[in-house]
Amino acid sequence: MNDVRIDDLPVRDELRGKSPYGAPQLDVPVRLNTNENPYPLPEALVERITERVREAARNLNRYPDRDAVELRTKLAEYLTNTSGHEVGLANVWAANGSNEVIQQVLQTFGGPGRTAIGFEPSYSMHGLISRGTGTGWISGPRGEDFTIDLVAAEKAIAENRPDVVFVTTPNNPTGTAVPPETVLALYEAAQAAKPSMVVVDEAYIEFSHGDSLLPLLEGRPNLVVSRTMSKAFGAAGLRLGYLAAHPAVVDAVQLVRLPYHLSAVTQATALAALEHTDTLLKYVEQLKAERDRLVTELLAIGYDVTASDANFVQFGRFDDAHAVWQRILDRGVLVRDNGVPGWLRVTAGTPEENDAFLDAVRELLSFVGDTPTPPEEQSA
Amino acid sequence: MNDVRIDDLPVRDELRGKSPYGAPQLDVPVRLNTNENPYPLPEALVERITERVREAARNLNRYPDRDAVELRTKLAEYLTNTSGHEVGLANVWAANGSNEVIQQVLQTFGGPGRTAIGFEPSYSMHGLISRGTGTGWISGPRGEDFTIDLVAAEKAIAENRPDVVFVTTPNNPTGTAVPPETVLALYEAAQAAKPSMVVVDEAYIEFSHGDSLLPLLEGRPNLVVSRTMSKAFGAAGLRLGYLAAHPAVVDAVQLVRLPYHLSAVTQATALAALEHTDTLLKYVEQLKAERDRLVTELLAIGYDVTASDANFVQFGRFDDAHAVWQRILDRGVLVRDNGVPGWLRVTAGTPEENDAFLDAVRELLSFVGDTPTPPEEQSA
Repeated sequence: MNDVRIDDLPVRDELRGKSPYGAPQLDVPVRLNTNENPYPLPEALVERITERVREAARNLNRYPDRDAVELRTKLAEYLTNTSGHEVGLANVWAANGSNEVIQQVLQTFGGPGRTAIGFEPSYSMHGLISRGTGTGWISGPRGEDFTIDLVAAEKAIAENRPDVVFVTTPNNPTGTAVPPETVLALYEAAQAAKPSMVVVDEAYIEFSHGDSLLPLLEGRPNLVVSRTMSKAFGAAGLRLGYLAAHPAVVDAVQLVRLPYHLSAVTQATALAALEHTDTLLKYVEQLKAERDRLVTELLAIGYDVTASDANFVQFGRFDDAHAVWQRILDRGVLVRDNGVPGWLRVTAGTPEENDAFLDAVRELLSFVGDTPTPPEEQSA
Repeated sequence: MNDVRIDDLPVRDELRGKSPYGAPQLDVPVRLNTNENPYPLPEALVERITERVREAARNLNRYPDRDAVELRTKLAEYLTNTSGHEVGLANVWAANGSNEVIQQVLQTFGGPGRTAIGFEPSYSMHGLISRGTGTGWISGPRGEDFTIDLVAAEKAIAENRPDVVFVTTPNNPTGTAVPPETVLALYEAAQAAKPSMVVVDEAYIEFSHGDSLLPLLEGRPNLVVSRTMSKAFGAAGLRLGYLAAHPAVVDAVQLVRLPYHLSAVTQATALAALEHTDTLLKYVEQLKAERDRLVTELLAIGYDVTASDANFVQFGRFDDAHAVWQRILDRGVLVRDNGVPGWLRVTAGTPEENDAFLDAVRELLSFVGDTPTPPEEQSA
């Protein structure tokens, strides 16, 4: 029995030889590798969570509200208040992390015999979840400076006629914001080619210098904006993702969602966190300042930096990024090697964590064989 | 915009005209329709949940343990203690409800170009999740008395050569237990035909007169036993399902699971519930006695009853089961119409709830045009 391995089981052919997705979960002093918010929830919120969960636990023998009406209503209020674009219960859907939101969107609009495109490097789960749902994945182009080259992107859409188009803004792992005009042009290109759904992944939008693209939903039923409470709300452990779209999209994903997918404790905890939105958004302001400081300091040291609208910064360039990743880890700081040749990604942590990171990469310069190339033009 | 409907969106063809799965969530005095445990969690456990969740909430800015090691270890201990078959961390996987466990199994071993079979009527989510994952669904046969007709089932496996075989024991919605010899024979048939994975869905096993089939895992790497905390643990609101299998199976499903799928609050709540296993299993004993009482009383009234090893009872027969469902609802008792012609399903509730149900169906006899047929042979 002990010599039975994955490939001895009747697994799908495309899974053979694969490894599970996920950053190493290493126990090091400074963890700046998964774009977590470094600030623990304030104690008042922790208490509010326990109150709400106590109430939910007293009814835990019953299935949760399958439609998560209270939670979706409060998420809609948050979106309306922060974007100025009015969003209601009927426009919002929630699931266990934006990964599950994306999975449901792909099960509805992608799947076997259909394709999805993203402009890479981008959030690698878009491609992985596409494959996991039987959706063909098309790796679309991105410019040398990691912006979306509109002409090349429109060409890729026209040629491939994908069913789902992913646009991540700010983009992960590069931090690059996508201008609204570009998203609009991609939407038009996608409608002309098929028509297809366009998913704007705004997981990091609260950290952006610019605004959410939620107002673009007006009059565009094939547009979806996905969000998460993992980053701005400091609740990566909660696994609460959500989307805003035309009510017909919300109706459609309910055809594929697993019934009662969102537990009563998840709903209770998310509702508590939403009550403390104002406090949590103050941490976001601190993190934006720290992100800008990281950019400035990395440039001053002599690294290349990609302009960032997120809570992380992509820096380089390195002949062997993975070797540099290991050297930074040896100094007690965990950053992320996303496999973008020449680049690494660091999450904006607390001022102390960022200092530790900057010290580590300063030291590094004397050891690394690379001569950093001159800094690219920066927006920050 | 308001006139855009699901079918105006580029949804998958097979979703057109479909409605979401799920029993009506109606606010009536006696809800015996979704096989929930009627006993709220004891207050000591509610307090333990809040303690554990408070601790988790203080670290909620970090992603949860992606591999849920502590939870899987405790689930393995529970399985070992209650089945006598030794199960360890490496044998156990957990997800948001057994629905997500099944979805992951189908993404790994089913999917486009592959098929799954179940013996219907059975848990309808097996077919729905198969379709949701692009897996072809084969509706296998069940005998007139709702047991699995082994000859017919073996023939269906040999002819269809499915990649995944579902065996639900006790079966939902009929309550029927499947003898170990039958499961073994189906496993052999499935291996001879393909080989394929056999998933034994034991969601209701704690309520059975018989034992879990966990010991069958020994020497059978293509066997999976799925479980849930929704029923015996009285935690439907928690959405915690799990499976036991060969470690290679647990490795394999990690190729398709969404990273960090199981939130920190879910893990904390489940761990608290597992600390109170002994108390919760006492409720199970009460529910088994109530289930047996429902069978006895329904037979005494003159209904047909399917022998039940679960926390629910299938009763009939009716010319128009849905009309009878409505009449019972009119008396303030919600039971389930699973679409099995002639039959309805009632969950074993508290003694008071069951009395209310029995009163309602006694009254009914004078109104219903059906003359109940003589009771079938019963094991209870």
